[in-house]
Amino acid sequence: MNGRIDSSKDNKREGKLFILSGPSGTGKGTVVKQILKTCDNVALSVSMTTRASRRGEVHGESYYFVSQEEFEKIIDKDGFLEYAKVYEHYYGTPREKVMQDLDAGRDVLLEIDIQGAMKVKRSFPDGIFIFLLPPSLKELRRRIEARATDAQDVIDLRMSKAAEEIRYLPAYDYYVINDDLTEAVEKVKSIFSAEHQRVDQTAERIMERYKEAD
Amino acid sequence: MNGRIDSSKDNKREGKLFILSGPSGTGKGTVVKQILKTCDNVALSVSMTTRASRRGEVHGESYYFVSQEEFEKIIDKDGFLEYAKVYEHYYGTPREKVMQDLDAGRDVLLEIDIQGAMKVKRSFPDGIFIFLLPPSLKELRRRIEARATDAQDVIDLRMSKAAEEIRYLPAYDYYVINDDLTEAVEKVKSIFSAEHQRVDQTAERIMERYKEAD
Repeated sequence: MNGRIDSSKDNKREGKLFILSGPSGTGKGTVVKQILKTCDNVALSVSMTTRASRRGEVHGESYYFVSQEEFEKIIDKDGFLEYAKVYEHYYGTPREKVMQDLDAGRDVLLEIDIQGAMKVKRSFPDGIFIFLLPPSLKELRRRIEARATDAQDVIDLRMSKAAEEIRYLPAYDYYVINDDLTEAVEKVKSIFSAEHQRVDQTAERIMERYKEAD
Repeated sequence: MNGRIDSSKDNKREGKLFILSGPSGTGKGTVVKQILKTCDNVALSVSMTTRASRRGEVHGESYYFVSQEEFEKIIDKDGFLEYAKVYEHYYGTPREKVMQDLDAGRDVLLEIDIQGAMKVKRSFPDGIFIFLLPPSLKELRRRIEARATDAQDVIDLRMSKAAEEIRYLPAYDYYVINDDLTEAVEKVKSIFSAEHQRVDQTAERIMERYKEAD
């Protein structure tokens, strides 16, 4: 599908793209951090942006910071799995780095909001889409309020947006309810593992190993 | 699909039927034993047979031992997920016990050969089919020979049967290569876990939890 079939002969591990998505406040970032801490073979996809870097942000870790001109050149080459313009700044997922990791047999984890995930689903339908859910809307409100940074109307806005976003669940492959963090992380990791055991289109490649009756 | 949808409201766990299958000598039995040791919520499906019990075999554990008349009555009621007559004796997987466990929210693990699995696939297409593979045909031969119970022609027969059976891989959902036992068991367990996180037909039921915006 994207050149990775060439690795069939040497039984090289096939990298997979996992998209972890969910409404704001469900704890995507925390789950991602835990996964990166405990999984060897997973690379985090780093976004590219045209906004200025803030204090403490590292190029290539927090974001790839580029000029608007550079960003638009990549758009023209269809070089983003998804991108969006938020106010005056671009944000996007560069395709090239993702493909390099996948080709090297590494899984790639992409943390992204629902809108972005839906774009990735179009540009990379082979991705595995995981929806992170709060235990309940009530608990989500409690978590958003606990951050104590938002005014009440902003909280209400976030809540109604979350309720709306959950309607996209049927577009996802998996859901994980983030009630207990450790359990949620284990569930995501079991999805990573199980996806590497799926037969699907790999049946021919697997059967190839067992062709000679010795 | 089979009455289990009624449990939607109380968020009861939905039991799933996992079929672990593979050629003779791949280590199905050992993997199953390890899983039952370490998984709480999995019941092993016990076969029914008309053959006489052997020393040490316990009714309801090794097999359900029944008369030919009883067995055929159950056949007539379509009470088996699969059955077969091997020489003069019947062997089958009673549907009722499996359904009871699933309804109680327990997963059911069925260890079965490829022919049996293909029958279960017709009678219970919602099952999750896992193919256990040897690391190689060469290693499979080594394992079969190590048992030292079979004559050379029987070993050759087993080997050619295994090579043939592997062609059924595309009918399965997952494959697990039993190279290292611990790893193989972990992979099977990750499949169990991940399958409970699949969105599929359960999206409506999940979204139901998030209907009220508080």
